[in-house]
Amino acid sequence: MSTYVSTSQRPLVDLYSDTITLPTAAMRTFMAEAPVGDEQKGEDPSVNELTAMAAELLGKEAAVFLPSGTMCNEIALAVHSRPGDEILADATAHIINYEVGGPAALSGINVRALEGDRGVFTAEQFRAAIRTPSRYAPATTGVVIEQTSNAGGGTVWPLERIEEITAIARERGMWAHMDGARLLNASVASGVDARTYASHFDSVFIDLSKGLGAPVGGLLAGTQEFIDSAWRLKQRWGGAMRQAGVIASAGVYALRHHVDRLADDHANARLLATELAKIEGLEVHPEHVETNIVLFDVSATGLTAAEFGARTIEEHGVRVSVFGPTTVRVVTHLDVTAEQIPTAVKAIAEVTASALAA
Amino acid sequence: MSTYVSTSQRPLVDLYSDTITLPTAAMRTFMAEAPVGDEQKGEDPSVNELTAMAAELLGKEAAVFLPSGTMCNEIALAVHSRPGDEILADATAHIINYEVGGPAALSGINVRALEGDRGVFTAEQFRAAIRTPSRYAPATTGVVIEQTSNAGGGTVWPLERIEEITAIARERGMWAHMDGARLLNASVASGVDARTYASHFDSVFIDLSKGLGAPVGGLLAGTQEFIDSAWRLKQRWGGAMRQAGVIASAGVYALRHHVDRLADDHANARLLATELAKIEGLEVHPEHVETNIVLFDVSATGLTAAEFGARTIEEHGVRVSVFGPTTVRVVTHLDVTAEQIPTAVKAIAEVTASALAA
Amino acid sequence: MSTYVSTSQRPLVDLYSDTITLPTAAMRTFMAEAPVGDEQKGEDPSVNELTAMAAELLGKEAAVFLPSGTMCNEIALAVHSRPGDEILADATAHIINYEVGGPAALSGINVRALEGDRGVFTAEQFRAAIRTPSRYAPATTGVVIEQTSNAGGGTVWPLERIEEITAIARERGMWAHMDGARLLNASVASGVDARTYASHFDSVFIDLSKGLGAPVGGLLAGTQEFIDSAWRLKQRWGGAMRQAGVIASAGVYALRHHVDRLADDHANARLLATELAKIEGLEVHPEHVETNIVLFDVSATGLTAAEFGARTIEEHGVRVSVFGPTTVRVVTHLDVTAEQIPTAVKAIAEVTASALAA
Amino acid sequence: MSTYVSTSQRPLVDLYSDTITLPTAAMRTFMAEAPVGDEQKGEDPSVNELTAMAAELLGKEAAVFLPSGTMCNEIALAVHSRPGDEILADATAHIINYEVGGPAALSGINVRALEGDRGVFTAEQFRAAIRTPSRYAPATTGVVIEQTSNAGGGTVWPLERIEEITAIARERGMWAHMDGARLLNASVASGVDARTYASHFDSVFIDLSKGLGAPVGGLLAGTQEFIDSAWRLKQRWGGAMRQAGVIASAGVYALRHHVDRLADDHANARLLATELAKIEGLEVHPEHVETNIVLFDVSATGLTAAEFGARTIEEHGVRVSVFGPTTVRVVTHLDVTAEQIPTAVKAIAEVTASALAA
Repeated sequence: MSTYVSTSQRPLVDLYSDTITLPTAAMRTFMAEAPVGDEQKGEDPSVNELTAMAAELLGKEAAVFLPSGTMCNEIALAVHSRPGDEILADATAHIINYEVGGPAALSGINVRALEGDRGVFTAEQFRAAIRTPSRYAPATTGVVIEQTSNAGGGTVWPLERIEEITAIARERGMWAHMDGARLLNASVASGVDARTYASHFDSVFIDLSKGLGAPVGGLLAGTQEFIDSAWRLKQRWGGAMRQAGVIASAGVYALRHHVDRLADDHANARLLATELAKIEGLEVHPEHVETNIVLFDVSATGLTAAEFGARTIEEHGVRVSVFGPTTVRVVTHLDVTAEQIPTAVKAIAEVTASALAA
Repeated sequence: MSTYVSTSQRPLVDLYSDTITLPTAAMRTFMAEAPVGDEQKGEDPSVNELTAMAAELLGKEAAVFLPSGTMCNEIALAVHSRPGDEILADATAHIINYEVGGPAALSGINVRALEGDRGVFTAEQFRAAIRTPSRYAPATTGVVIEQTSNAGGGTVWPLERIEEITAIARERGMWAHMDGARLLNASVASGVDARTYASHFDSVFIDLSKGLGAPVGGLLAGTQEFIDSAWRLKQRWGGAMRQAGVIASAGVYALRHHVDRLADDHANARLLATELAKIEGLEVHPEHVETNIVLFDVSATGLTAAEFGARTIEEHGVRVSVFGPTTVRVVTHLDVTAEQIPTAVKAIAEVTASALAA
Repeated sequence: MSTYVSTSQRPLVDLYSDTITLPTAAMRTFMAEAPVGDEQKGEDPSVNELTAMAAELLGKEAAVFLPSGTMCNEIALAVHSRPGDEILADATAHIINYEVGGPAALSGINVRALEGDRGVFTAEQFRAAIRTPSRYAPATTGVVIEQTSNAGGGTVWPLERIEEITAIARERGMWAHMDGARLLNASVASGVDARTYASHFDSVFIDLSKGLGAPVGGLLAGTQEFIDSAWRLKQRWGGAMRQAGVIASAGVYALRHHVDRLADDHANARLLATELAKIEGLEVHPEHVETNIVLFDVSATGLTAAEFGARTIEEHGVRVSVFGPTTVRVVTHLDVTAEQIPTAVKAIAEVTASALAA
Repeated sequence: MSTYVSTSQRPLVDLYSDTITLPTAAMRTFMAEAPVGDEQKGEDPSVNELTAMAAELLGKEAAVFLPSGTMCNEIALAVHSRPGDEILADATAHIINYEVGGPAALSGINVRALEGDRGVFTAEQFRAAIRTPSRYAPATTGVVIEQTSNAGGGTVWPLERIEEITAIARERGMWAHMDGARLLNASVASGVDARTYASHFDSVFIDLSKGLGAPVGGLLAGTQEFIDSAWRLKQRWGGAMRQAGVIASAGVYALRHHVDRLADDHANARLLATELAKIEGLEVHPEHVETNIVLFDVSATGLTAAEFGARTIEEHGVRVSVFGPTTVRVVTHLDVTAEQIPTAVKAIAEVTASALAA
């Protein structure tokens, strides 16, 4: 639902998304010197190093490097499913809203949406949605949990909730996949190891081009057998590259240098939310800000989110994203410094004040 | 969700579904004398007569005879869609719950479920669920309305509601399909012509093997171009038969003789609901009974619907269907007479009383 | 490739196909008296009897009744396959040429065509076409054999050839399906039991509406597990009917009364071929006529097959089918008597002579 | 069919494929300095420059950058097709043999294989394979031509042949796609502009990671409407990246600096073929070497191609690829110098001589 607010030059402060970070000079140098080879032959040392790091980080037997997080999710679904299966996910899930209908188009499966709280559903909701086997009903075969929930506002799925839900899934013979696009944000925020979260899932992916700040790619991990199947789909769908080390190396660099610093993004987001909450005319919930995402509602200003966002960028050079009719999303990341937060707050305050005065 | 309660002989009163009617002696004779030919060559006179009747009844250019209502729905979706599309339907819809995941498996589409009232959603719900076009979101391309709503309890979609929703659909470039499995029940109950309902839809199907009492088949109607496309899928999916007049003739007979009598089924259902409402321990809403379906809740008895149904058939020879954890469905039809209603009521009352006493 | 030559009334002699037979009076009576029930609940006695007969005849654990042979083939492929698989069949196969692209559309599989001799390929051709497993190649997972080969001219696959090929298939971990649309023709012609042929296959189907003379349907047989999976697809695709005994009973009748008489069709076809071979201007191979199909070439007449066929029906009331640019097919069946053969021969001879004289 | 012959270190001479080139130092520097942005927002200057270059080069309205040539082909097929369509290609085509069954799995289409001469079929073969429209046959809707033909041995499709075939396609309402993985090799070899070849096709792709020597990616070009549709599939399949300029820049560099030098690869390949033809025991056709690929047969040596290739790499450090049971393929490219050719010839001659002596 996010709509891009176009701008001819780089914004003063860009809170659009953590996907828009540019590779740092150090990362660029590391990439330029990376050893590479043909990844389809298993000959790319940088890809091999990166997938080994991911398998280790996530506690899985193996991992595969893919050009995007969407391909990580969609290949996982395709490996786990047969056409006609039904799977469960929160109504806000990326696989439902941002992957262009991929689950049905690529795997022939229906995603049944659960109405969770800020992207997180309960074990009771989950259990109730699993269908009783019958000749007529689709079989409920899997569940996807998005950690953190993007459209929920960066919510961290609590470990116990994950344990409860995946225990039910196993008991019912269902597989479980973690869309861990921002799993490392969850891990840094909660202090729970990524591999601890991942241990409850048959497959898990992490995105390199969000908070980690790499330009391209995601990593999908699971058993060796799962990854062998994923590789066949990587070839078939055209995700198999050649000297992919030129980009995988950025992932190696990011996993070495950009994980711990996610705490800074979280601090910036909290600061931002706290300051925004002081602005009359906005509805903000600082207590909901667990990671690097802040949602706020502008309905009291009489502006739509699209109008609001157009004014922050055009009048103040601050880019936000439109996330609903009156919902604005701001995201902190590698290219947003603590120093920029007051600038962003001021811009948003002025647009709000000016709208209220109109 | 309905689970069959097995029985070794025909029940005394069979309220399981209007799908279980047996062809009458007169229908059998009509079938035995029907002229037939190869329907794939357009040479079967009975099929040709039946599809002409359907096109006329529904006010469409053409119709095709198919072996089931499920194939009518699934072929309509496949003709209207491209893989990756998203369509809207009520959460109780047959296409979501009783077609084994067909929309995703056969057409690559996702069905987004709207939470209507007894199977009927509002124009506001509908409008809000249509996605804004974007590079990320699936395109919302169609809507399916089930007339009457089976799992909603035989609810009739009001004509004005249909008009509102399909007007929005047209305005947004979306197609509209009517799952008219029980459209003639709606028409008889409301006094609105089937073709008036159908006029708002690009395609519409009616089922011959429900209240109409024919043994096999459904009819799908639309423009000639739509039906030409449907014929290709009929061939591909194996719905093309040969001397199909042997069964299509039952449809001809049913459309001639079994439409008006649906009013008797409705009267029987109302009577049944009124009497059941008097039984302490059951939750029944006679005011919701608009056609031939009655839902009631047995939670106060301490029995599950499955346990309740097992006792009505085993102890009293009355077959009902299990429609939810504590929801029982009873359906009136061609093989249920007004005389059988008191027998059914007595059986249900006794099971209830005995459970409450336990 | 066969193109229907339309005719406003039933032809004098109809050699178009064995699919156009009409149910006999005795079959009609048997159908009218058949016990029926809801087949989806396992309650239709006629369907149950028919599927038991089929399982017994084919030596398999179970069978399912479907509305057409095409659905029997396509469901078998779907149960055996995963999207992206490749399977092998003769270039003339029904699944390649007459099922509207079903294998790719419904199962996501490619059918690789082998160039056999009159529809029958060799074990060497088969072995050479199985791909070496690799990251790039599709996996070759199955084989379909059509017994008899329709487009090959009714050729019977020799038992030893079937044994050789299916042995290789098993050794390579591949499944094998028999499209036995005319398996009983092969069995009657060769004296080899249907179950002996079937024993080499994971699944096998026989058609009721070809030589057997029933109006509608086919039977697919295999293990109980296979049939359970087939039933789910039967529901999803809309092949699940209700009181299907009204047509299944015709199958019961046909299996009891119309199998041995296939020998008459074969004798008629041989007689027809022998007589046609005497006509100057036609290319006929009586030695190729093993069952009920005769192919002949009309190129020496200067006519296309379509022109030739138009003249036999319009000038002489004899309907044939157009099977290639200059190839005509004639088929004997239940509704073609030995007495009609000379009439057909005379018509064809006259069209030929007249064309040669032009 | 090519099987990788593993090696623990880089071979002395690597003739395995033109896909294994490493980015040059100059290319690396260019990449490290490239301006980048979020390609999904249209904000990546390097991606924008590259796609503009491709559109210009190929004479099309627009182009899209994708992570691989396989995705270029498969997205083109998916945009052009509807499930159940049949398309035509040479039996050696990449889409048939090296894309893991993608056409059926991703688009639901069957690829019918034509038996051309070294990868090039005739207009007559093409015309004969287009099916007459009927209710039964799949519709023949498109054609794919691979320029050059890899498995045909680098054969250049003559312009007149392309004109003939695409004229027939247009006349029959069919689309035409060029798999131009090595289109620039064809263009350099024949002197015909890439855009002249491309002008006959609805869509065309060129690969950056083959002879052009870039590490990752391909470019798909067509009308703006076609590219808009391709973008939706790029998002759905996970081919949409973020700061993709880090790799697209290599493509910009390659198109500027690595096109004309393909002539060197062709000269090296001709030299190689001429020398190999002098070796007793090998079957080589220098007259078939039109671009950078040489095929030769080793059956006279008594070795399989796999055994032959194992010995050239293990005993002499020369890597070749196994292309059939007794067919070896050698490919010249950016990382093969004229000086290396005698080394390669000597290695192959010694393995051959030693095998003949055994």
